[in-house]
Parts: sequence; C-alpha cells; structure tokens
Amino acid sequence: MRIGLVGTGGVGRALVDLIGKRDDIELVFALNSRSGVGDQAGLDPEKLYDYLGRTRDLEGYGEGGFGAWRISDILNEYRVDLLVEATPTNKSTGEPARSTIRLALENGLHVVTANKGPVMLHYRDLKDLAEKRGLGFGIGATAGAALPTISAGENDLLGSRLLGIRGVLNGTTNYILHLMENGGMTYQAALQKAQEEGIAEADPTQDVEGWDSAIKMTIIANALAGKALKLEDAEVLGITHLTSEDIRSAKDRNKRYKLLGELDLEAENPRVVVKPVMVSHEDIFYGVQGKNKGIQYVTDNLGEFAILGGASDVRGAAAAIIRDILQIKKRIFRKV
Amino acid sequence: MRIGLVGTGGVGRALVDLIGKRDDIELVFALNSRSGVGDQAGLDPEKLYDYLGRTRDLEGYGEGGFGAWRISDILNEYRVDLLVEATPTNKSTGEPARSTIRLALENGLHVVTANKGPVMLHYRDLKDLAEKRGLGFGIGATAGAALPTISAGENDLLGSRLLGIRGVLNGTTNYILHLMENGGMTYQAALQKAQEEGIAEADPTQDVEGWDSAIKMTIIANALAGKALKLEDAEVLGITHLTSEDIRSAKDRNKRYKLLGELDLEAENPRVVVKPVMVSHEDIFYGVQGKNKGIQYVTDNLGEFAILGGASDVRGAAAAIIRDILQIKKRIFRKV
Repeated sequence: MRIGLVGTGGVGRALVDLIGKRDDIELVFALNSRSGVGDQAGLDPEKLYDYLGRTRDLEGYGEGGFGAWRISDILNEYRVDLLVEATPTNKSTGEPARSTIRLALENGLHVVTANKGPVMLHYRDLKDLAEKRGLGFGIGATAGAALPTISAGENDLLGSRLLGIRGVLNGTTNYILHLMENGGMTYQAALQKAQEEGIAEADPTQDVEGWDSAIKMTIIANALAGKALKLEDAEVLGITHLTSEDIRSAKDRNKRYKLLGELDLEAENPRVVVKPVMVSHEDIFYGVQGKNKGIQYVTDNLGEFAILGGASDVRGAAAAIIRDILQIKKRIFRKV
Repeated sequence: MRIGLVGTGGVGRALVDLIGKRDDIELVFALNSRSGVGDQAGLDPEKLYDYLGRTRDLEGYGEGGFGAWRISDILNEYRVDLLVEATPTNKSTGEPARSTIRLALENGLHVVTANKGPVMLHYRDLKDLAEKRGLGFGIGATAGAALPTISAGENDLLGSRLLGIRGVLNGTTNYILHLMENGGMTYQAALQKAQEEGIAEADPTQDVEGWDSAIKMTIIANALAGKALKLEDAEVLGITHLTSEDIRSAKDRNKRYKLLGELDLEAENPRVVVKPVMVSHEDIFYGVQGKNKGIQYVTDNLGEFAILGGASDVRGAAAAIIRDILQIKKRIFRKV
C-alpha cells in the first residue's frame, strides 16, 4: 500500500521508522509545514528517519526534496492510496488538518490521522464523506494511541450496543498522581519531574486540567456511539487542586486517585464528566499505573470489559497509525 | 446474511434469541444430534427460541421439522452463507464437529464455531482450508467468549508482534477462588456452591484442574502467533490443592490467588504454563473478580495491554458468535 505523510514531528518520525521495518507499506512522500520530500518509486524510510533526527528541513534532503508546497499539487503529483495526517493539532478550528483530510478524501484517498482537533470538531462530516466514497478514515491515534479504544469499539464490540464508557485516558496525569502517591511529592514537584522527564508538556494545561481526557471521551463517544457530543458540554475538573494530604488520605484507605472520565450513554442528555475519583483496589482502574491508560465499555450483550495499558509514547502512537493503515488495507483486499 | 446452526444447547438457543433481535442475520436451519428444522425463506427465531425452551426435539416443530439428518444433505438442501457450529465438544478427536466444519468450508460456507475440541486439535488445517477458499473461520467463542481475546489479537494488535501472553481465562475457578477468599469457604464448599448456582459443572475436572485454561491459552497462541502448540506439552496445575489457609495467608499479605496461564512466545520452546499464582493489588489481574476473565498481550510496538471482563454466560458466548459473524460479513461487503 502506497502512503503519503503530512507531519514529521515525533509521531511522524516514529512512523517512518516503523514503515522501514515492514514490506507492505511504501512511503511515497513526507511533508511538514515548510518543506517536503517525495519519490514516486518510494522513499528510503531508514534514510529519511536518520535525516529527520538531524533536521526537519526536507528541502535540503537531496533528490526529491522541496520547499513550500500546496497539498493539492502534491496529491496531483504523487500517486498514493492513503494519506497519514499527523501535523500539530488546532483544537479551535481543526485547520489546516481538516481541509487536508477533506481534500484527500475527495481525491479518493483513505485517511488515517493522529490529529485530535479535526476529529473532535468534525468527525461526523469527515466520516460521512469517507463512507460516501467507500474510503477508510482511521482515528485510533487520536483517542488513546497504543490503547486500542477505537479498534476495540469497532471490532470487539460488533453486534453489541454500547451503554456507557469509563476511562482513564491521560497518561501524563496518571503519572503525576503516581509520583504524588509513591514518591510523596506535592503536585508541583510531581509536575516538574514529569516535565523534566519529557512526559508532561511545557504548558501542561490540556492534560492537568482534564481537557485531554474530555477530548478523548468525546471522540470515542462520537465515533462508537454515533453521538454528536461537544467538548463545551463536558463537565471537566483536573488534578491541579489535589494536595499531598488528599493523596495520603486515600492511600490510608487502600484507595488511590484516578482522573476518570465517565459517560452514561443511556442518559437523556449524555454528558462527558471528567474528574479525579478515589478508586478502591477492587476497581478495574486501580492497577492502571504510571503512564498507562484504560477504558471500560459497558455493553448490552457482551457485559462489561476493560482494556488497560498502552503507555503513552511516540512509538505507541505510530503503531496505532500502522494498525489503522493495516485495518483499512485488510478490508480493501477483502482478506476474510 | 443467511446462516445455519448446528447445536441447539444453551449457547445455540441464546444465539437464536440474539438473531431474533437483529435484521441483518437470517436463520435458515437449526440442527441438533437427533432432529432439525429448516425453512428456505427463514425461520422465525422467536418461535424457535420459545420452542427450544420446552423441548429439543425439533421433529415435532411443525412445518419444516425433521428427524435424523446428514449434514451433506442439509447443505445441499438449504442455501446459506455461513454455518455456526455449536455442538458439545469432544476434546480427544474434535469429531463430529471437525468433519462438519470441513464439509461446510469445502461447500464454500464461512464457519463460526464455539467448539473447543476441533479448534484446539485442528486449527491450522481448518484455517488453511478457509483461507484457500477465501472464507472466514471465526473461533472467538472458543477462547474467552464475551472476552474478545481473538478479536483483539486479530484487530487491535495489527502491525505488532505478540511476544507473550498472560491470562486468567477460566471464570469458574475465578469464582471459586472468590468464594474462598470473600466467604472464607473451603475449596469443597466453594465448589459445591458454584455447582448449585450452575456456574461449575457436575464434573468440574476440566475447569478446576486447569485444563480449560490451558486449552484456551493453546487456542489463542496457535491462532494469533501461528504456533502449533499441543495441549499435552502444557504444564498444568489446578486449584484443587489450595486450602483456606493458603487463601487467608495471601489475603493477609494484600494478595490473592488467580489461576494464571502464561506463555513466553520468545522462548526457544514456547510452552503454556497454568498454575495458581499469588498476585498483588498492583497486578493487572488483581481486580478480575467473580466470573470475570482477563488476558494480557505483550507486544513489540504497542507495549502491554490487558482486556478484562467478559463474565461467563451463554448470552456472552452467543454474542461472541454474533461478533464473529458480523466481522466476516463486514469483510465480505468490503465495508471500510
């Protein structure tokens, strides 16, 4: 399968690495905001991976490198089956990723994206467009990455109705809570350590105030339960107010805090609620430690089941993109 | 999609019930060891479900009912796309299920089975035959039922290599251990209670001596990792020797026993090991309580992830069959 990549940051570069280890995916072009590189006969992923470790300026790549580009020109020039969209996200408009995805679908390309903004804001539109054209639209990397929230919902739940969702979906806050509990740190000290280790971002607001969790819950509900939930309707409380005393007092009761998202799909007006919750060691999420995540699906026929794990890192996110590509490929070729 | 059913026991009847609630699966015939019923235009699932609640003798069903049958005649007479095989299992030979499955595949039918014997003994043969003919062969109900062990392996792991498997795969023993721990019962008392509640079978040997867990581990490894493991090579120890004192002493240390299956796929000679293991409350399986089950997959690119839940019952097993049918249907119609 021939693919093109937009976005050569951490996840994009990890994807190039994984593609280099496979013989069933061919990378034809790679683009970032200012430059790109393409080869109709297929790029050398190992060479590109090494190059991106030194600089993101692809104009100087040598043969096939170029500067400013327009996506319409690129899609005219290079023949690919699928576009991977992995540019930095914009959560207000979803642009320019949304336009790129639309154009690719209109050009008959399958699309896989790791970009939360357009998926949170425009999932139904983009999915409808893809379905109308018989194309795949993979979003697994936007909602848990290595943790297969979307794949499980689309495959493992087939034939059952989803009644409710619970999730610990943010690895950064889970790690901070872990440090506070096991290292006895204050919130500030734990955040700083997580930042030093490259786990928390310089501006951690999205994670620690619960918005990243709420976005993932919203994406999952919209994708799996056909809802049109909006982020602004979610009730969101983060972990910034939690004190060492709160954590210790939970521990004394054999409990621990988790930043938990909950959604009752049977409610009259389903609404995502994200807040820190004390869970006992009988709770399925108690053992989700460190950077791990978890999701629990409540269904009518299959009962309740949870998927736990999928520690956050760029390799896991890239592997989630590969999974989406291969799921689309499997269906194209009618492999039963 | 038009389907035929062989086997009208608990799971078969629950399947008829679920089919009655859907409009995308049509039941054309249903057979058991001595009788059957068929209608080229589709049976009435609600009527059949009620009938099976009274008697399994389908010869007296009225229109379409018949006595002794041969599967070759049935497949000649009724046109279906897929055969569901859900007869009682034979773990020594896999017959007659194996022959039924082969014949169906040779006749160009997709097959979904809930029958452990033929899958444990002949998975590779049957799968090869299905693949050669471009047909689906669904086995999810044989390895965890509602817990989507096979579906997760085939879909959620795509693009990653499986390095190891850990599983708590037997709901009955998990429930017995739960009673011993929380009710302070002896093994014998807990077994008896589980039998009275219809959870443990009259002859509980397969479950309590660990063979059911070993069979499921073997099926999963053979299906997902392309192995040809044999049950006789497994190292299997059940829970019958555990005393109230063992359970209490674990509890005093904040631990609990789980009947755990483990398999290191990177070992020179991979071998299933099933035995009771004390797990701490940091272990992902600690929270798998009652009749629930769990599986953990260790992978190269997606890290570790576990799926927990899927309490054992006939409805869950029937829902697992529906899931397999719909996964095959989705691929036939190239729905991306």
